[in-house]
Amino acid sequence: MDGAGGTGLGVGMVGYAFMGAAHSQAWRVAPRFFDLPLQPRMTVVAGRTAAGVEAAARKLGWEHTETDWRKLLVRDDVQLIDICTPGSTHAEIAIAALEAGKHVLCEKPLANTVAEAEAMVAAADAAAASGVRAMVGFTYRRVPAIALARELVAEGRIGTVRHVRAQYLQDWIADEEAPLSWRLDKAQAGSGALGDIGAHVVDLAQHVTGELLTGVSGVLETFVHERPVAGEFAGLHGTAGAGRGPVTVDDAAIFTGRLSGGGLATFEATRFAWGRKNAIRLEINGSRGSLAFDFEDMNVLHLYDATEDARVAGFRRIVVTEPEHPYVGAWWPAGHGLGYEHGFVHQVVDLVEALAAGRQPDPSFADGLQVQRVLAAVERSAADSSTWTPVETGVDRHVERNGR
Amino acid sequence: MDGAGGTGLGVGMVGYAFMGAAHSQAWRVAPRFFDLPLQPRMTVVAGRTAAGVEAAARKLGWEHTETDWRKLLVRDDVQLIDICTPGSTHAEIAIAALEAGKHVLCEKPLANTVAEAEAMVAAADAAAASGVRAMVGFTYRRVPAIALARELVAEGRIGTVRHVRAQYLQDWIADEEAPLSWRLDKAQAGSGALGDIGAHVVDLAQHVTGELLTGVSGVLETFVHERPVAGEFAGLHGTAGAGRGPVTVDDAAIFTGRLSGGGLATFEATRFAWGRKNAIRLEINGSRGSLAFDFEDMNVLHLYDATEDARVAGFRRIVVTEPEHPYVGAWWPAGHGLGYEHGFVHQVVDLVEALAAGRQPDPSFADGLQVQRVLAAVERSAADSSTWTPVETGVDRHVERNGR
Amino acid sequence: MDGAGGTGLGVGMVGYAFMGAAHSQAWRVAPRFFDLPLQPRMTVVAGRTAAGVEAAARKLGWEHTETDWRKLLVRDDVQLIDICTPGSTHAEIAIAALEAGKHVLCEKPLANTVAEAEAMVAAADAAAASGVRAMVGFTYRRVPAIALARELVAEGRIGTVRHVRAQYLQDWIADEEAPLSWRLDKAQAGSGALGDIGAHVVDLAQHVTGELLTGVSGVLETFVHERPVAGEFAGLHGTAGAGRGPVTVDDAAIFTGRLSGGGLATFEATRFAWGRKNAIRLEINGSRGSLAFDFEDMNVLHLYDATEDARVAGFRRIVVTEPEHPYVGAWWPAGHGLGYEHGFVHQVVDLVEALAAGRQPDPSFADGLQVQRVLAAVERSAADSSTWTPVETGVDRHVERNGR
Amino acid sequence: MDGAGGTGLGVGMVGYAFMGAAHSQAWRVAPRFFDLPLQPRMTVVAGRTAAGVEAAARKLGWEHTETDWRKLLVRDDVQLIDICTPGSTHAEIAIAALEAGKHVLCEKPLANTVAEAEAMVAAADAAAASGVRAMVGFTYRRVPAIALARELVAEGRIGTVRHVRAQYLQDWIADEEAPLSWRLDKAQAGSGALGDIGAHVVDLAQHVTGELLTGVSGVLETFVHERPVAGEFAGLHGTAGAGRGPVTVDDAAIFTGRLSGGGLATFEATRFAWGRKNAIRLEINGSRGSLAFDFEDMNVLHLYDATEDARVAGFRRIVVTEPEHPYVGAWWPAGHGLGYEHGFVHQVVDLVEALAAGRQPDPSFADGLQVQRVLAAVERSAADSSTWTPVETGVDRHVERNGR
Repeated sequence: MDGAGGTGLGVGMVGYAFMGAAHSQAWRVAPRFFDLPLQPRMTVVAGRTAAGVEAAARKLGWEHTETDWRKLLVRDDVQLIDICTPGSTHAEIAIAALEAGKHVLCEKPLANTVAEAEAMVAAADAAAASGVRAMVGFTYRRVPAIALARELVAEGRIGTVRHVRAQYLQDWIADEEAPLSWRLDKAQAGSGALGDIGAHVVDLAQHVTGELLTGVSGVLETFVHERPVAGEFAGLHGTAGAGRGPVTVDDAAIFTGRLSGGGLATFEATRFAWGRKNAIRLEINGSRGSLAFDFEDMNVLHLYDATEDARVAGFRRIVVTEPEHPYVGAWWPAGHGLGYEHGFVHQVVDLVEALAAGRQPDPSFADGLQVQRVLAAVERSAADSSTWTPVETGVDRHVERNGR
Repeated sequence: MDGAGGTGLGVGMVGYAFMGAAHSQAWRVAPRFFDLPLQPRMTVVAGRTAAGVEAAARKLGWEHTETDWRKLLVRDDVQLIDICTPGSTHAEIAIAALEAGKHVLCEKPLANTVAEAEAMVAAADAAAASGVRAMVGFTYRRVPAIALARELVAEGRIGTVRHVRAQYLQDWIADEEAPLSWRLDKAQAGSGALGDIGAHVVDLAQHVTGELLTGVSGVLETFVHERPVAGEFAGLHGTAGAGRGPVTVDDAAIFTGRLSGGGLATFEATRFAWGRKNAIRLEINGSRGSLAFDFEDMNVLHLYDATEDARVAGFRRIVVTEPEHPYVGAWWPAGHGLGYEHGFVHQVVDLVEALAAGRQPDPSFADGLQVQRVLAAVERSAADSSTWTPVETGVDRHVERNGR
Repeated sequence: MDGAGGTGLGVGMVGYAFMGAAHSQAWRVAPRFFDLPLQPRMTVVAGRTAAGVEAAARKLGWEHTETDWRKLLVRDDVQLIDICTPGSTHAEIAIAALEAGKHVLCEKPLANTVAEAEAMVAAADAAAASGVRAMVGFTYRRVPAIALARELVAEGRIGTVRHVRAQYLQDWIADEEAPLSWRLDKAQAGSGALGDIGAHVVDLAQHVTGELLTGVSGVLETFVHERPVAGEFAGLHGTAGAGRGPVTVDDAAIFTGRLSGGGLATFEATRFAWGRKNAIRLEINGSRGSLAFDFEDMNVLHLYDATEDARVAGFRRIVVTEPEHPYVGAWWPAGHGLGYEHGFVHQVVDLVEALAAGRQPDPSFADGLQVQRVLAAVERSAADSSTWTPVETGVDRHVERNGR
Repeated sequence: MDGAGGTGLGVGMVGYAFMGAAHSQAWRVAPRFFDLPLQPRMTVVAGRTAAGVEAAARKLGWEHTETDWRKLLVRDDVQLIDICTPGSTHAEIAIAALEAGKHVLCEKPLANTVAEAEAMVAAADAAAASGVRAMVGFTYRRVPAIALARELVAEGRIGTVRHVRAQYLQDWIADEEAPLSWRLDKAQAGSGALGDIGAHVVDLAQHVTGELLTGVSGVLETFVHERPVAGEFAGLHGTAGAGRGPVTVDDAAIFTGRLSGGGLATFEATRFAWGRKNAIRLEINGSRGSLAFDFEDMNVLHLYDATEDARVAGFRRIVVTEPEHPYVGAWWPAGHGLGYEHGFVHQVVDLVEALAAGRQPDPSFADGLQVQRVLAAVERSAADSSTWTPVETGVDRHVERNGR
């Protein structure tokens, strides 16, 4: 299964649903297009039932299976644990793995609570001392157009950031009769649109600008309070016979924020935007130019350079499929666009390169914790009449109010 | 100067700058394309200096001039006063005109303060008893694509409104060295981006949805606190010799809000969005569909109908240039787009038709006051840590907090 | 009716339908926004019936009427004849007007045949000797985005032209049951899509590139051979009682061509492109860059500059609404888009300025003739198995075949 | 390496450059997302040099290597030959493989000449008698948006096809100093833009409409006749020392055509369209609606349905990422777009399913031959003053001229 050579990196993956399939594709494909310093090996996948995990291993291409994730931690042929389970299980698995000396790649959100995330950061810090690394998976950072956007901001192409408007719009529960799922149950999912998709745009806004949110003011809303019980949910939570069960998370979140450099930000996360399938939109206005991105046109970045002659200035539609662009040269000739899954491949590439170099991969667990703190601040603000709420830094908890 | 006949309507216009030119074009052109029940006559224009107003009359095509607007109120050949002066003068002129029995068309913002606007509404109410009418000019309502959007919402095409995202983005002071102007001086302009352009998107969001904002949470920001003194500003306000003067209004406003039907809204008004020249964006998600509009593509409305088969559903790009569309049939054959100024023509048409029919034209001064109250609530919220602030109704001032 | 002063220019217009309304708007509005060296006066309009022309004069704002266009030629208060009648009448009116010493503005197409157009050019040449001027109306040249495109090509911004792809797509007879009109009758209209709308894109392609078509290869097609007889057509041409009548012009034309600089061109003109209302598309690729335009988004020009760093190169969406852009500064502040009719206003401005300066206005009758010759070459090619057919120059008729 | 089970299908691939990498990815990934009736096995790859092919096998994940492609034909562990070499070698390899009883997947173009393609079809016909199958690789057919377009046309959603406009625009040799490559050498490449990229849009136009081109009229052009000699070309063809060598293929092709249903078509293939990276554009107007596609936005299909109420009709932007869409359900949740390479995966899926079912996979060698005949007709027309040239059917070679 090895690619072009190099030392191996045995991977043990926990979970094999949507994220498990995406991560499997990334481990499988990365060495075929990139020259990796370590050769990933799809060694073993863990799941709760033998039948389920064996079918998944066969389908997804893993060599071995386990029905207890703890078994992965004692295998000598596993050097990295890849956590693809729901958020409520992340802390336990990640901390145990790090303590067992295994590198960890953990899907976002880092955890369902700030407290869990803080414990995970502590474990990551302790492990780092002995060269064991932890990374959280915000793969949209690795869409080439987003990576290019970050480079351009860092180079000063748009100057000082004044405005960010970030939206994550979907429509999969806009239909009031769409059934309940675990994602609509606070006990399992932690939060709704805020944590599931809002987390992505918070991370992207901070990543691309290179700044952090210092405070927020938010509103959360649940539009549909009861939904039909179907599939996995039938019979759960006292819903048997009732036919309908409660939605206990937010359907949508809107919030304003301020960046560490003084800029203003607006955010929106909703699954009720009919017609928007996966519209991750990021628009940034700086003192010298602007950037705009929409995941519905993911291979494109729009750039406005205000230093150009006004007569011919305009947003440039950069088709981010050229060898000059981040990650792109390893794939196809110019003009041949990539898809959703390629961000996962690039994540594997960056992770493996960091591991081989003994560097901290990016984003760290601390980065994941910081996003959780932003979301927690939004929730506190929404519960307190939208009052401006500083984002905790974990270091200095003095209160700021609507200022820098 | 008459068109196809009918009784005349003598117009006296006060002010002749940008808005005066736009209104003149509307009075001139409306009877050439629409069959009006009253024939407008461009009777007289008033300005402060004889030389200035005479040059303007010649250029814009007015028959007579006055250097004191009060003279217009006693002319028998004037039945309507068209107010195109800065906001700080609106209340005095409008109230006097209504008391003199003249109909009034007043540019937005209705006034610089809620108190002034309330006095204007009182005067309009009193005048209405004797058939004298007052209208405030939110002309973007009369862009055909916006008018179509309102019709579609009213017909239930997108169901219950859940989300509004409204932005008014410009870039004319994004350059930190752009000079001071009266629009950046609180004493003259009242407010900055909030009142100048934010007012438009507040009005549009409410007009298209047919709902009102019940509460808001806002942040205001001034990015550039001092600017070069130039032109009209040199020597004013103790700036002589200094070379730079203070900006005393907001450069940008962001706010969240809730609509009377329970939907969430986000707003942004800024003149610092490099590359966005006049981007009035309105996107509405309802329980059965969505709408999207951007004034940078003003002859287009996007509609998503969620009742369609998912296999072929998609945002429709409706080119709003067909005879089936509001106002369009009076102009050119299908496909020949309109421009910015046509909204002013449509405003004249609607106003004249209402006057002839003895109806209240729309939007009324009360509608203009309500928009002022929304802006005032944003300012209060921004001054109070973004705390959720109900929009005053003028009737029942009980406090709501972040709820319906 | 005068604007800011200057000598007058009495206009006599012949015809008052669609084009008459557009031209009237232009004469009316131009002096209100532009400082003209001559003040146009809407002196007299001519039409066949007294009732019709009087109603039109009242509606469109003309001072006097005539029922015989020849009367216009002997009026001392008329210096310019504006011809807005169908193409079959252009030659007679224009030649008589020029011989009477009147300037002429003639709507496109210059004539229905090359022979007529040649006679008109001869008359224009003769008149020019005594300072009498003739202009043909290709108003799309004066859309600001098109005018900017021409400037950019002339400045060498896109280098040598290699490709032009030009389309004029409409859909108003795509419905097979749309009724007959005079535009579908060869005796009256001369040709179908080719002459009506193909003429526009031929002119634009040549105007923007600054080159001429040297040869073409074409195909013409009539998709629907019979249509319902309705309105103006009922009872004409032996169709009484029949219910349906023949379509005798082309419904669509496609052709390839070569420019004088060696570039390749493709053209398409059709009224059968469902969903395209007035899509005039022009895309030009040069040795150093590219341009793209679509009238459905008429205030926008797209420019690709190949000399830019490939990492940030992309088509720039230039919003052509800034004071730096052709014609725009006379209108509104930045960002306020224009519409279809503004091209007619700009035509009046350019014409009046040329007349006052004693210059030949552009495009001349010779330019109109040259477009007719291109269309004639397409027709000849289509009738001769699409064989490559040189465009006659009127000077040197040697045959070229598919070469430069 | 197997997926979820089933009988195996040993694959032997010839060539390992761009297309070899794309095909490898397809064989690797298809069984991980689709339930295939036969499990592909990446058995052996053939190349000319041992070092080269061994490195490729390691990188791309093939089990064995050969330096003579003929060795693949005698291996029992190979059931299918996948031909990824230049077009001049296709006929020899494919015919030998079919005669050896191996299924064949052959990259496009099927061959460099019609004669070779005819021989390949004969071999495919002979092999089919014993259940051995041959397929040519036009993978753009399997972009989901294109597959959906074909379905919609077949269902009658746009009625009778009247217009096709098809373009394939690239810019990789628009720079006159871009070096020579084998693709610019007629001896190796057969033709230039016409065969390389024009072939794709000819196939797509015919595939989506379900019709064939019956005749064409074309122009070919070489803009840059000499280029710097670099890399692979240095010293070849007597270019040593010269520094520059000749371009012997067309740089661009434009042609008109007629479809078997009577519709008109325009085509353009060029590598000189600065700023267009891989713009495969297909626009179809039918009697009841229209479709539009651009590969630069490959997950989107635009549909206009002319049976809708004109007031709300418009091109729908269908985001083709939903489970209702062809191929999409096997991948990710709604809204997560695919990339260029996924078309190759879908090609493997369709091929394997056809093989397992004993069906002819689509497109057949006969389909590939028919595309070659279209291209040959374009070349003949271009060499004969663009005279209308019927596409040979191989059955009935009577000449048609510009008719159906």
